[in-house]
Amino acid sequence: MPPPNLLTRPEALSGPELQLSHSVAAVAQSGLRELLGVASRQDIVSFALGLPAAELFPREALAEITARLLLAEPSSLQYGVPYRPLKTQIVELMAVRGVRCTEEQVFLTSGSQQGMDLLTRLLLDRGRQIILEWATYDGISMAVKLFEPEILTVSTDPATGIDVDEVEALLARGSRPAFLYVITDGHNPLGVSISVEGRSRLVELARRYGLPILEDDAYGFLYYGEELVPPLRALEADWVFYLGSFSKILAPSLRAGWIIVPEALIGRLSALKHGTDCDTSSLSHRIISAYLELGLFPGHLAMLRTEYRRRRNTMLSALELHFPPEVRWNHPSSGIFVWAELPPGLDATELLRIAVETESVAFCPGGTFCPGDRRRGSRCIRLSFTNCPRERIDEGIRGLGRVIRSQMARA
Amino acid sequence: MPPPNLLTRPEALSGPELQLSHSVAAVAQSGLRELLGVASRQDIVSFALGLPAAELFPREALAEITARLLLAEPSSLQYGVPYRPLKTQIVELMAVRGVRCTEEQVFLTSGSQQGMDLLTRLLLDRGRQIILEWATYDGISMAVKLFEPEILTVSTDPATGIDVDEVEALLARGSRPAFLYVITDGHNPLGVSISVEGRSRLVELARRYGLPILEDDAYGFLYYGEELVPPLRALEADWVFYLGSFSKILAPSLRAGWIIVPEALIGRLSALKHGTDCDTSSLSHRIISAYLELGLFPGHLAMLRTEYRRRRNTMLSALELHFPPEVRWNHPSSGIFVWAELPPGLDATELLRIAVETESVAFCPGGTFCPGDRRRGSRCIRLSFTNCPRERIDEGIRGLGRVIRSQMARA
Repeated sequence: MPPPNLLTRPEALSGPELQLSHSVAAVAQSGLRELLGVASRQDIVSFALGLPAAELFPREALAEITARLLLAEPSSLQYGVPYRPLKTQIVELMAVRGVRCTEEQVFLTSGSQQGMDLLTRLLLDRGRQIILEWATYDGISMAVKLFEPEILTVSTDPATGIDVDEVEALLARGSRPAFLYVITDGHNPLGVSISVEGRSRLVELARRYGLPILEDDAYGFLYYGEELVPPLRALEADWVFYLGSFSKILAPSLRAGWIIVPEALIGRLSALKHGTDCDTSSLSHRIISAYLELGLFPGHLAMLRTEYRRRRNTMLSALELHFPPEVRWNHPSSGIFVWAELPPGLDATELLRIAVETESVAFCPGGTFCPGDRRRGSRCIRLSFTNCPRERIDEGIRGLGRVIRSQMARA
Repeated sequence: MPPPNLLTRPEALSGPELQLSHSVAAVAQSGLRELLGVASRQDIVSFALGLPAAELFPREALAEITARLLLAEPSSLQYGVPYRPLKTQIVELMAVRGVRCTEEQVFLTSGSQQGMDLLTRLLLDRGRQIILEWATYDGISMAVKLFEPEILTVSTDPATGIDVDEVEALLARGSRPAFLYVITDGHNPLGVSISVEGRSRLVELARRYGLPILEDDAYGFLYYGEELVPPLRALEADWVFYLGSFSKILAPSLRAGWIIVPEALIGRLSALKHGTDCDTSSLSHRIISAYLELGLFPGHLAMLRTEYRRRRNTMLSALELHFPPEVRWNHPSSGIFVWAELPPGLDATELLRIAVETESVAFCPGGTFCPGDRRRGSRCIRLSFTNCPRERIDEGIRGLGRVIRSQMARA
């Protein structure tokens, strides 16, 4: 047997073999990729992927803006420094979210995932510790993989978010992790938002112990309660590194997001980004800036919140109606996910296989999101409510309820 | 003094300090960034940056296509797997370049630089050796920096390209580098293309010693001779990893490129890209695919070659006319750069400062491109001829000639 980082190629058995890097041998493809394949089948009601509603994209406005931009400004297709007007607009957008920052603290990315990659390179060394929740966005696990960190996991309360006591205990015992990654509102996959008290305790710990917090706020603008609760970055500017994204509030394929960090770090981020993709102005950044300039965005966001709130309510009603009482789930006040826990004896991955086969329904098994032990999520499922019309949500949850009941009868 | 990876922030002197990663402390911002600032001043005739001609972008066609795409296909704004039709079109494009490949070997990137970053992660381990030419694209140095490799430099003949004898000598003495990075045609910054004999010898070495070659072909479609010479990938499919880009032949801000690798590596590249930016279909990839579908690209490319050939000829004539005979330069048959060597006693960085001040002309000092010892390029300058109208090329070279003569008189 060759070592795992030698790739055996039948056609070259007698010649030299390609040696892959040490860390890449351990990198597996995201489970989400295969799910994307199944879930995009027309006949499937899919709650599997964290997709925004395609029919709500502001296509007409984007089409008109882009055509105008390309015709009027040759420079929109050229290399250039990151687009400053968009930074100014992001400062204004952050004010809506309760965050005060300056253009000099805003760094443009091609989406939140790139933000995670760059901040990881900025802060993490091989083998250092990081803190993650027991279930969290799997993209952070993929971003840190190259550095093979020691992952310290902490619990999350389904109602109040990350267990701050556990974070404090780790720090008090002497751990000095490179960072803590957290999704403050509309957690992916758990749907939860951190309590107001939890937020202030977290930033207090960050200050006291010098703990950088990577705050992923991909869902923070999609809140369904009466009022918006400001993110951690509103409470702390030095230790909270904020990650924003246009993917869920405008359109994913524009590949655009931003980071807010202390100004002193912007030059280093720029050098890091230059090494990964040139750090030049993208057409997408220009398109988004022109769209924001039109003043249509607040209305668009309000429309998204109204429609997504309806879909969330439809899903919660359907769960009440069609799921057996042994299943537990939460009531998210932000974001696009509901998290449910199946009764003992059921396995989410097996359930997915049967649900697709017999009821043409898909969801995402919880284990996908567990950076430590995948089995901890084996009885959990993540349901996304944003990419389905309401009548299909009810239909899909009914089908899923039937599969769960039949599996419970066998267990 | 704090160690270099502790960032001292005046406002937090008494509290904990932010610890940056080990490698980031060594990362400097690209010198090109500041040049971009100077060179974009309206009054400057700039040969400094490798910019395509903005006035030649097919703006009308892209505007019409994009508007149509956005209106007709909501999925063009959604998450999705890398866009397969574009892979098929790239296979056809590669056939024009003399390369046979399949869709399964094509991996879509957000530009060549991302290709370098991903291939580096795929192949390089910390501290391993790589082979670079003594002067080469500085983006590869930035891509590998995280891994702090030992860089083995080899010479380049101004007429025939990389010194294959030196590469062979390194391998024969036992070096087993993670890869060799090379720009086959229209070298950046040297302007040279590798001879036909050099190409076949390089791939023979790659096969014999199991040396992966990262072949950067960003300029290969921009050839000005009678016929196109196929790149290394046309001669060897297992050991040559080909990097393509739409930046120079379509438009940089679309952020689109591709890699061609053995099919067995595509899944790993996808996992790596997922960790860096999600590896989802971008709107740009859809726009380019729709543009290629129209059938206008061969004509566009022919127009670019005609116009860029004219600009190259104008620059070569102007050099002949205005530069003192002590300066030597080459006659590129591909790409967008001329490389010139100043007489002893002159310093390119100092010359740039004076040229900008007194003649409003800019170029890129050679040291920028020297991964080993920057001083080796201190008498060299890179001149880009594609982003200037012809009358300004003559004017700029005349001014630069004056500065060189006056500096020579002082030296």
